[in-house]
Amino acid sequence: MPKVKTWIDEYNKGSRFGLDGKVLIRKNSKYQEIIVIENDYYGKALMLDGCWMTSLKDEKYYHECLVHPALSSIDEKSNVLIIGGGDGGTARECLKYSEIAKIDLVEIDEEVIKVSKKYLQEIGREAWNDRRLKIHINDGVKWVEKTKDNFYDVIFIDCSDPSEFSNLLFSNSFYKECKRILTTKGILATQSESPESFKNIHIDILKTLKKIFRFSKTMYSFVPIYPSGIWSWTFSCKEELYLTKPNCKDALRIEKSCDIWNINFQNGAFKMMPNKILKELNSENEQ
Amino acid sequence: MPKVKTWIDEYNKGSRFGLDGKVLIRKNSKYQEIIVIENDYYGKALMLDGCWMTSLKDEKYYHECLVHPALSSIDEKSNVLIIGGGDGGTARECLKYSEIAKIDLVEIDEEVIKVSKKYLQEIGREAWNDRRLKIHINDGVKWVEKTKDNFYDVIFIDCSDPSEFSNLLFSNSFYKECKRILTTKGILATQSESPESFKNIHIDILKTLKKIFRFSKTMYSFVPIYPSGIWSWTFSCKEELYLTKPNCKDALRIEKSCDIWNINFQNGAFKMMPNKILKELNSENEQ
Repeated sequence: MPKVKTWIDEYNKGSRFGLDGKVLIRKNSKYQEIIVIENDYYGKALMLDGCWMTSLKDEKYYHECLVHPALSSIDEKSNVLIIGGGDGGTARECLKYSEIAKIDLVEIDEEVIKVSKKYLQEIGREAWNDRRLKIHINDGVKWVEKTKDNFYDVIFIDCSDPSEFSNLLFSNSFYKECKRILTTKGILATQSESPESFKNIHIDILKTLKKIFRFSKTMYSFVPIYPSGIWSWTFSCKEELYLTKPNCKDALRIEKSCDIWNINFQNGAFKMMPNKILKELNSENEQ
Repeated sequence: MPKVKTWIDEYNKGSRFGLDGKVLIRKNSKYQEIIVIENDYYGKALMLDGCWMTSLKDEKYYHECLVHPALSSIDEKSNVLIIGGGDGGTARECLKYSEIAKIDLVEIDEEVIKVSKKYLQEIGREAWNDRRLKIHINDGVKWVEKTKDNFYDVIFIDCSDPSEFSNLLFSNSFYKECKRILTTKGILATQSESPESFKNIHIDILKTLKKIFRFSKTMYSFVPIYPSGIWSWTFSCKEELYLTKPNCKDALRIEKSCDIWNINFQNGAFKMMPNKILKELNSENEQ
């Protein structure tokens, strides 16, 4: 029987964002419900436990903004950790840099990787076959705890919204462990939720990272299929970090390969904190 | 009988964005279907002909970005024209500037103003009673045609997406007429659609304005309830325009009154053209 089109919606605070299409797979893994739908405009799209994670049409809005501000701004980046990132998009963007020698991708849910390799090949692409990419089916929190000091040059936290099994990825203790395993000039790059749809979590992440790291800066940009469409990424470092100009030989080539990111776009995105978030952070600093 | 909650969705290219709530009014004016819904998170929200126009929760994302880049950057701004803007938000932001002596608000659909005054008072607020605001129920295109040369200091085009009755507001001839009625240092400020959901229209607007005006610059920011959540506003002028620093005595006071806009945010937003749009514009320039 040919598959019929249906609406699949994400619900968030009295609103819903839905895509219309044929459901290619709907299954329950050990951790979550996984759905892939094929939509005429967004292409194939992945939903985990009722939340849109990525789509072929707009995945670059997310992945380019997580990866390039970090990797274009530091010299030493041979050893990279990705926590989550089971769709392969973050690894794909990382592997554009020739200086990267090894990426440990630690994803808790093997089914997400299997589904992504089968249905969302256009996201991970050749990254899945790159010898520099090592996949570990493991709990990111435990992985970080067992890693020795000063080990990774860059850590990407590419995880879903806080939930029963991802809550710890947003905790004070986890960020401290990340700091411990980062090299002196290393960068922690994390998605830091929406200042609109997840305002309290967003502000908590910013405040926590600011306390733990000497330097922490947040950029804001667009992810059309995420709640509110406004998203943020925060970059933290033990030392001062210069994000305003590319510091890598591949920067121009990488700009050309990108749909969303370029260095000018990035410099803008770091200024786009909505004034009400700025006021809230400032008023708390004054207390 | 108490009103029951229902979902009202905007449909766009295989996706839908819906709000759940009680419908406060649903009526057909001479021009369009008008709906106001009361949603628990977004507050009251206005839909015209199936498209979300504004909501109490996120209207400032739109109105502050249309108004303040223009009004904070020019000296002479006593005489202002708003085309559309029947919800009152654009007028409200304009009236924060003490230098403004008169605003002509030209809205084609009287029902939009009536509905906004009755159900969306929190948007227009005291603007509706301000003596400087003159409301004209009229066709914006005709209004501009009959206006004498060098008349307005600022023109805001605050209209809905292109449709049967708003198409002309996006035309070459209309923009030329706007240029004619602007003062030498005057600014045309227009919403210029989404580079994602209305990419072709967006690029058309940018190219057309660039041809007609000596200076034209586009900023990108967020409007959560609009398709894709990415929106743009373009500012055009007969002379070079300095948008990077406030040039008005009220700028600091106005920043404090804003939820989204501040001058730093604005400077970022003018850099946020997605790389794929930049590449498309550049490749056309090379042809």
